[in-house]
Amino acid sequence: DYEPSFEIGKQKAKVCMTCHGEDGISTLDPYPNLRGQKVGYLISSLKDYKSRQRTSGLAILMQQQADALSEQDIKDIAYYFSVLGTKKEGE
Amino acid sequence: DYEPSFEIGKQKAKVCMTCHGEDGISTLDPYPNLRGQKVGYLISSLKDYKSRQRTSGLAILMQQQADALSEQDIKDIAYYFSVLGTKKEGE
Repeated sequence: DYEPSFEIGKQKAKVCMTCHGEDGISTLDPYPNLRGQKVGYLISSLKDYKSRQRTSGLAILMQQQADALSEQDIKDIAYYFSVLGTKKEGE
Repeated sequence: DYEPSFEIGKQKAKVCMTCHGEDGISTLDPYPNLRGQKVGYLISSLKDYKSRQRTSGLAILMQQQADALSEQDIKDIAYYFSVLGTKKEGE
């Protein structure tokens, strides 16, 4: 366990960018923008996919993604998107 | 049925603002920002709460909110937040 880092998060988040955009603005209307989203919400969302508490059509896609992530991966990726596009990005 | 309007959406969205912010930037970390979010994602999220396809702890709050909304309300509110903070807001 370590403090989340923007650069580590960015590396781990590459798989997310195809749908959610390199800048965190998603590429298609059914997919949410993640840029600057609240870190706590991003973490609970990924955990909810993993624990099958989100189960609608498109959730299947995210369940598979979330299954591949460790707790630490989830923290890092959530941190990355929460900071993206905000003042904290440059810190 | 009618074209969604920013002003109608704004009136219906007042109940959302306590948690999700008057400007669509939420007031607490567990709650997502909605400002400029994709309209399709917002619609499917509200429908998923309504149909109990989102079931984790905090989802209970949103299930109750979504139960009170008609299909048209969902469209109007989703349109409002999707446009908030974007160029389309002034149109």
